[in-house]
Amino acid sequence: MEIKSYLNEQRLFIEKAFATYIPEAKGDFSDHIQAMRYSLTAGGKRIRPILCMAAAQAVEGEHVDPQDLLPVACALECIHTYSLVHDDLPAMDNDDLRRGKATNHILHGEAAAILAGDGLLTWAFDLLSNPAHGTLSSDKKLRIIHIIARASGSLGMVGGQALDIANENKTFPFSTLQTIHSSKTGALITASVLAGAVGAGADEKQLTALEQYGKQIGLAFQIVDDLLNATATTEQLGKTAGSDAELGKATYPAYFGVEKTRIKAKNAVSCAKDCLTEFDDKAEPLRLLADYIYTRSH
Amino acid sequence: MEIKSYLNEQRLFIEKAFATYIPEAKGDFSDHIQAMRYSLTAGGKRIRPILCMAAAQAVEGEHVDPQDLLPVACALECIHTYSLVHDDLPAMDNDDLRRGKATNHILHGEAAAILAGDGLLTWAFDLLSNPAHGTLSSDKKLRIIHIIARASGSLGMVGGQALDIANENKTFPFSTLQTIHSSKTGALITASVLAGAVGAGADEKQLTALEQYGKQIGLAFQIVDDLLNATATTEQLGKTAGSDAELGKATYPAYFGVEKTRIKAKNAVSCAKDCLTEFDDKAEPLRLLADYIYTRSH
Repeated sequence: MEIKSYLNEQRLFIEKAFATYIPEAKGDFSDHIQAMRYSLTAGGKRIRPILCMAAAQAVEGEHVDPQDLLPVACALECIHTYSLVHDDLPAMDNDDLRRGKATNHILHGEAAAILAGDGLLTWAFDLLSNPAHGTLSSDKKLRIIHIIARASGSLGMVGGQALDIANENKTFPFSTLQTIHSSKTGALITASVLAGAVGAGADEKQLTALEQYGKQIGLAFQIVDDLLNATATTEQLGKTAGSDAELGKATYPAYFGVEKTRIKAKNAVSCAKDCLTEFDDKAEPLRLLADYIYTRSH
Repeated sequence: MEIKSYLNEQRLFIEKAFATYIPEAKGDFSDHIQAMRYSLTAGGKRIRPILCMAAAQAVEGEHVDPQDLLPVACALECIHTYSLVHDDLPAMDNDDLRRGKATNHILHGEAAAILAGDGLLTWAFDLLSNPAHGTLSSDKKLRIIHIIARASGSLGMVGGQALDIANENKTFPFSTLQTIHSSKTGALITASVLAGAVGAGADEKQLTALEQYGKQIGLAFQIVDDLLNATATTEQLGKTAGSDAELGKATYPAYFGVEKTRIKAKNAVSCAKDCLTEFDDKAEPLRLLADYIYTRSH
């Protein structure tokens, strides 16, 4: 399997599903929905939904109906996108550029961007609980909702972002950076893997292994993000390069230098793949995704 | 039954439940959780959770275990509180005062307030899906989540707030004001009633009646809000009086004058109570709540 064509195919599969699972920009709230759709459809690697689908495949292989997981995959992308829209706000990271395009508040204004984020977050839970979508049992849906809510909220992504913002321009121990990374980035990545696995009926042993896999690739993902922010250009990234240093954010390269940081990312990917030893070749996409997270250039 | 003592008793019952259902401000994310708790515990009438409990009682009377509905009630208050925190932001209504206290961003800063709102919203869905809370069936929980997500998101409260902000200082038809009111305020109030009713096992006929009841008291609630904003003092309200006029917001009094507006609010309350004719005296709290919504002074 070739990772680039796999990623491309999966990305298109998920983006096509937006037509079904995201409201159209029409009716009373068309401007608001347009603002939501703007950020949701402004590119993106769709890593979280792809991880969700790949984890389901690893557990059950061809027996999983991807249609059942598409609402979950879209919900994950809604939550990820809302987090970017809010992170980019002037009061937060104050970024003008995201994925090579104007950020939401630059185009729609700050109030509309806050509400676009609120709308995307809430829509995720609408999708996950919608009785019209998919044939997953209520027990599975409910477990997926709780996994995603816990990972994206105050004890996960939102808490991590709050800690990140509060620690700008401050010196703090490396353990705090680990907490920021694991909550701000790792939690939702792990939840994406677990949501797919629960949907596909994984047993507790598989869930434990996949949770560890998720944590390791989440760590690798954030380390590589730190590296790219420090070493790539704005053009390569499609977002402002060097913003971490400018905002006084602690990062892996700031603690360890670029070379040691690269090794740490590579080790995390290696650990992630070790978590998959009990899985057969249906977990091949998960293994390739781990490699991709290390080699990605944006 | 005396409405004031009923409301007070119910309010204390719900506020006591925060100790169980809202995370404590400790650990890695203590500052963030403290910011969430600040707005959640800064007073409030707790109308939505009380409506939820009262609707459950109307359907099943003494057979409902209130403990099963407390996570739902707390989730509704989390969502209502998040909406206030975000509405008060400088980019939105830019309000310094809420319930007689400094608004969240005044005390914690804008970034922390945005994240406190995000955290409260997400926590609501964590609570609603938590397997450790209550004995409602997965089917009921899932239905409640979907009712609440639909009402509070882009096709409900968030959409209404976006429409409200986008129409500041504009002239628009009365039908647009009706859409703003029914989505921004009515939807979550109706959802509060329906969530309690679903939790208590209401049949479809009861749900239809209670949905109509919810819509009418939602309308009355917003009309009275408009009236109070125009006629009461900042001290009486605990939030900035006259802010609607200052922000160029269309309101019922602006369309109809104060006296005709009062009559419209009274009519809505009357219609609300008419929706309850099929219910026995276990619906007495819902009837009294309808009256209270008209007579409230803040």
